[in-house]
Amino acid sequence: MNAGIIGATGYAGAELVRLLQAHPGIKNLNAASVSFEGENIENIYPNFLKNVSCPLVKPEEAIARSDVIFSALPHGVGEGYAKACVERGISFIDLSADFRFGDDEALFAAWYGQRYKYPELRSRSVYGLPELNRARLRELAADGPVIVGNPGCYPTAASLGAFPALAKGLAAEGATIIVDAASGVTGGGREPGRAYHFPECSDSMSPYKVGAHRHSPEIRRSFAAMAGRGGVCAPGVVFTPHLAPMNRGILAALYIPLARAWQSPSMGNAPPSKEIAAKAAEIRRLYADFYKDELFVRVLPEGVFAATGRVRQSNFCDISVHLDQSGTMLIIESAIDNMVKGAAGQAVQNMNIVMGFEESAGLAMIPALF
Amino acid sequence: MNAGIIGATGYAGAELVRLLQAHPGIKNLNAASVSFEGENIENIYPNFLKNVSCPLVKPEEAIARSDVIFSALPHGVGEGYAKACVERGISFIDLSADFRFGDDEALFAAWYGQRYKYPELRSRSVYGLPELNRARLRELAADGPVIVGNPGCYPTAASLGAFPALAKGLAAEGATIIVDAASGVTGGGREPGRAYHFPECSDSMSPYKVGAHRHSPEIRRSFAAMAGRGGVCAPGVVFTPHLAPMNRGILAALYIPLARAWQSPSMGNAPPSKEIAAKAAEIRRLYADFYKDELFVRVLPEGVFAATGRVRQSNFCDISVHLDQSGTMLIIESAIDNMVKGAAGQAVQNMNIVMGFEESAGLAMIPALF
Amino acid sequence: MNAGIIGATGYAGAELVRLLQAHPGIKNLNAASVSFEGENIENIYPNFLKNVSCPLVKPEEAIARSDVIFSALPHGVGEGYAKACVERGISFIDLSADFRFGDDEALFAAWYGQRYKYPELRSRSVYGLPELNRARLRELAADGPVIVGNPGCYPTAASLGAFPALAKGLAAEGATIIVDAASGVTGGGREPGRAYHFPECSDSMSPYKVGAHRHSPEIRRSFAAMAGRGGVCAPGVVFTPHLAPMNRGILAALYIPLARAWQSPSMGNAPPSKEIAAKAAEIRRLYADFYKDELFVRVLPEGVFAATGRVRQSNFCDISVHLDQSGTMLIIESAIDNMVKGAAGQAVQNMNIVMGFEESAGLAMIPALF
Amino acid sequence: MNAGIIGATGYAGAELVRLLQAHPGIKNLNAASVSFEGENIENIYPNFLKNVSCPLVKPEEAIARSDVIFSALPHGVGEGYAKACVERGISFIDLSADFRFGDDEALFAAWYGQRYKYPELRSRSVYGLPELNRARLRELAADGPVIVGNPGCYPTAASLGAFPALAKGLAAEGATIIVDAASGVTGGGREPGRAYHFPECSDSMSPYKVGAHRHSPEIRRSFAAMAGRGGVCAPGVVFTPHLAPMNRGILAALYIPLARAWQSPSMGNAPPSKEIAAKAAEIRRLYADFYKDELFVRVLPEGVFAATGRVRQSNFCDISVHLDQSGTMLIIESAIDNMVKGAAGQAVQNMNIVMGFEESAGLAMIPALF
Repeated sequence: MNAGIIGATGYAGAELVRLLQAHPGIKNLNAASVSFEGENIENIYPNFLKNVSCPLVKPEEAIARSDVIFSALPHGVGEGYAKACVERGISFIDLSADFRFGDDEALFAAWYGQRYKYPELRSRSVYGLPELNRARLRELAADGPVIVGNPGCYPTAASLGAFPALAKGLAAEGATIIVDAASGVTGGGREPGRAYHFPECSDSMSPYKVGAHRHSPEIRRSFAAMAGRGGVCAPGVVFTPHLAPMNRGILAALYIPLARAWQSPSMGNAPPSKEIAAKAAEIRRLYADFYKDELFVRVLPEGVFAATGRVRQSNFCDISVHLDQSGTMLIIESAIDNMVKGAAGQAVQNMNIVMGFEESAGLAMIPALF
Repeated sequence: MNAGIIGATGYAGAELVRLLQAHPGIKNLNAASVSFEGENIENIYPNFLKNVSCPLVKPEEAIARSDVIFSALPHGVGEGYAKACVERGISFIDLSADFRFGDDEALFAAWYGQRYKYPELRSRSVYGLPELNRARLRELAADGPVIVGNPGCYPTAASLGAFPALAKGLAAEGATIIVDAASGVTGGGREPGRAYHFPECSDSMSPYKVGAHRHSPEIRRSFAAMAGRGGVCAPGVVFTPHLAPMNRGILAALYIPLARAWQSPSMGNAPPSKEIAAKAAEIRRLYADFYKDELFVRVLPEGVFAATGRVRQSNFCDISVHLDQSGTMLIIESAIDNMVKGAAGQAVQNMNIVMGFEESAGLAMIPALF
Repeated sequence: MNAGIIGATGYAGAELVRLLQAHPGIKNLNAASVSFEGENIENIYPNFLKNVSCPLVKPEEAIARSDVIFSALPHGVGEGYAKACVERGISFIDLSADFRFGDDEALFAAWYGQRYKYPELRSRSVYGLPELNRARLRELAADGPVIVGNPGCYPTAASLGAFPALAKGLAAEGATIIVDAASGVTGGGREPGRAYHFPECSDSMSPYKVGAHRHSPEIRRSFAAMAGRGGVCAPGVVFTPHLAPMNRGILAALYIPLARAWQSPSMGNAPPSKEIAAKAAEIRRLYADFYKDELFVRVLPEGVFAATGRVRQSNFCDISVHLDQSGTMLIIESAIDNMVKGAAGQAVQNMNIVMGFEESAGLAMIPALF
Repeated sequence: MNAGIIGATGYAGAELVRLLQAHPGIKNLNAASVSFEGENIENIYPNFLKNVSCPLVKPEEAIARSDVIFSALPHGVGEGYAKACVERGISFIDLSADFRFGDDEALFAAWYGQRYKYPELRSRSVYGLPELNRARLRELAADGPVIVGNPGCYPTAASLGAFPALAKGLAAEGATIIVDAASGVTGGGREPGRAYHFPECSDSMSPYKVGAHRHSPEIRRSFAAMAGRGGVCAPGVVFTPHLAPMNRGILAALYIPLARAWQSPSMGNAPPSKEIAAKAAEIRRLYADFYKDELFVRVLPEGVFAATGRVRQSNFCDISVHLDQSGTMLIIESAIDNMVKGAAGQAVQNMNIVMGFEESAGLAMIPALF
């Protein structure tokens, strides 16, 4: 099978090149770039020397030669390529936001400042969080080409952290869930800018786009879908992103008010009680059970905290489960590599599902500790 | 005036040495250390060569020669020195938790696993957050020696971020405030350990002691005192600390549910509206006004986000004020240098108040950007 | 085939576990640890959860069940296991210094403070730098079990940088080669210590063991062997290691005085001339030609400088070739990942050679840029 | 006294603002910027809020209102301002390279690609390394305005490391000194670029401009002047700069072949002998004695290695003295903060000398360890 990548020279595109080059089911890789057409990708990424040697072609050429297309273009410019792929009968896996909002064009338009070019394409699109929508991905794929709206990095970490609580009725009805998250600097992409200039972001933590980040409506939609699985109302969401002085990784802390049935009797200002530890252990088992068949979600044992360093360069999402000392607030810490499970790795996972490969094909990287 | 430091060789102690050495009102510095008695501090901290050359003496000796004593000992071992100081008629500024809980011995005992040795000392002790308790510090000082319970680093960042909202009635009655905070690695102190081993904590973010950190009851007490100023009930607190790959700094994100009168009409899942921006600006002005006479609190203008890098090696607390897109949640980002405003700098500030110096004496460091 | 690892819980051991677990030719992995016998390695390295689940056994047990043994024990404690392996007829790949000095027991003893326990084992041992000793490794393997003295991290980076210059007569006869190198902090191993405590080593550069590092005689021996290939006298070596604030990687700068025939006419204090650029290009071609069949050495094109970030988590050695502006000094910059090509990866490469696998088996990791 | 800064918004300019704002002898600070004229510097550097509030004026205005001018402009654009200052009778301290080469216009032109605009100004200019040229600075100042060519960051670290060896005849006649140095990323300035983009330079080491850096001829000139003090020929210099993943600091390793009289008998490949340790101690004492009256040079005791972290945010140059195990090569490690002793701090030191302040005025910052 041959795969194509449009927008191969950005960070997510280059990460796709790296993963697909090592994918056992991909024979030829057709990398396309508008900015660098004609150059070889190893000149732009010398880390690829002796490994990946492919001339950058036009997007149309990559589409013509491939059995599946990945797009790592910015938002709002790839719909035409999606259309071309569907017309050719091949699937299109899009890392931009263009296909993450399904029928809700108004919501997309409100946050991204433009309307859909080909709204009809949404009948073939799925929000590509495999743990949530694997069945739908397979169903659509059985029937023709699929357009995958590959989730954003923050929504991936947040959604996997909240899914069991929402689908199993742990979260209080009508609650507002707070998602406080930190990202590594690769999340800002390849273009240099003051915010990502080493002297200004290293050795420092700061928030950005507070109350205004475009991943906010995406998280809300994803939480709503998950709550729907448990027959619960969609929760409110407050999401705040931060920039942390590291290369890769997202750590999301989720604060989920517990339904009364799941609360432990409050201890006021006392240290955490045995009852609370027991309740936390119960919820941890529920989480572990919920994800027991998932290859890429690891619910950590008691005493091990989710850390971005332990999922670096892997497709894992690590989740640690905690209770606040008052026994009323579930605290979930969820860690992913923003470039892998938060972008290119999840895209490959989606391709594996859609194209009928083993879901873990090309994604068997064991994370190092450092 | 002569000052003494007990526990001068830990990180907070050494930072005190550095600040006091440059303090215009301090003539001699008497540094004491049990572990390194007899050595010169410049052998332990070669960064002090040519600047600070003082032999490390016994604590008793430092007390005998000083007009004020700082203690940077671990929790539970310094009360005897405090007693000796009060008996000698000199003030004692304690960086441990021993004097942060005032009359509430039970709460201290529950979290720190021991009772007060000399409970009666609390009649002369103050929780040393100057912005909250400056008047009380002066009142007690007018009348004899003072014991200052210098606040913890997380409680300092959290309290300064919440104070205006609590004292001015912005926070909803009965609300739970979430404090999600990240600390630099110096917060773990001078002793090497796996959690602070460079390969295990660099380039990674992770939480620790979730639902169980000892700063949790301290934050709750401080919030209660602040709410009392506004005649409001004490809020609930959920506090989660994280370790960030940087040396210095604490960034605390506070999620404060707004009282109805302060809410902006909710916009559901829409991007932030003009009304919300206007409401945020109004709250920002209220914060700026609240702190207008404070030397060390900077309420940042719109568009500037609190960043630990911009307060590094200074006594500032930078606060940025935000509203969630739903208009119902106040989000405060509060940044300090954990070793300065979060420890040694605040201790010097407290000394300045108690001893009648200019409050900014020895604390005029202008932070660099990097 | 089954492989065993003795000392599996140190950093190099854990990296071996990670690489061998993904090796296509290894069926079972027998990990042994004296300190953690009976525990499962995923409890010590939670990054291994869902990937590597092996109980830690006794070294003897690992030897009994394996077809090849890796040893990541400290210097001076593994010779007995080497003997046991040879007696069982299986090869032993040793990451310590015990088998790096061959017959030169006196040199080993001078630097490591102990004598060989079983000197006779050296008749079956090879210094395992494949680019230098591949033929000898194969020759010995054809004939029985092999003991591989896997090179140190600094000697690997330095040797690969110097090999063409020494074997092809570029280096001036009798010259002293300066090796100025910087290592990431993982080089210090898993045990926490002040030098590797995040606040003391992050955001700082410093040398250590100047003029006294044990890799110094190893580099000298390796250079001598390489010079011997070109019929040249062994050069003098001055080696200085530094600690850099990064996790992985060694960057070695080599200063090699050129033989007269290779010098470009000196330009005094002028900027680099065209003649110098041409001579540098000639030497770069010679280097590229020298290594053209090597899988893991990349001689970089003009304008690309060796960087540790571009070989991270890979088995590559990246080499950039430069001339000083005077035209008389060859400057080579050589970058490796200290834990892969500098330790576990090279050990796997040696195993592949000795056991008859493809030399790149299990080592096909494409480095990311970040 | 009033001071002016032209080019106040670059990193070196902002560091000057920070230091001069706290200088006891400076009353008003006139900051000028062509790019940001009319704005307040605290909008560009919010770290200055509540500390430094000065509107950015035109250079001409800053000159008209000041008693001394600092220029932190790029190379080749400030000579006109220097002329204006001299004509007004005020001194001009230039952080660019324009006045570092004195009469040697040809050398400047060869490396910087342009000729002097006003060659005659060199009669009033001094290379401003105070430890070398303090007397000349005073002499010229006694007599009228002075133009200071403030040294580059690498030349400062290298020169202070080599000075005693050159002036006291330790270096072998005709030797080539190798300077292998690493710089923090602030050395690249405020403008974002790919090389300084966090994901591309963090957690990585690499060289740049090998054999072609403009500080190379400056180091050579400075070494020549120093050798001249000892009546020795100018040594050859090979200089290689590296980029290290840290904010501030330069660490320079100097390899200085010893004159025969200073060599210790060679031990071949043996570990360092007592004789070598004794010889190193002798040279260390000589260095300490050489610098005994210098405020800002610290020759470190045995066992303490120069580290950039220990001079951070200070004007110190830390020097550690070592011998190679062969006893023939002196190895000096020299650490400075590139933005302070390597730029703004040294400029203030030069101003102090020229204007008759205490040499340490405004420079009494005690470095922290972290």
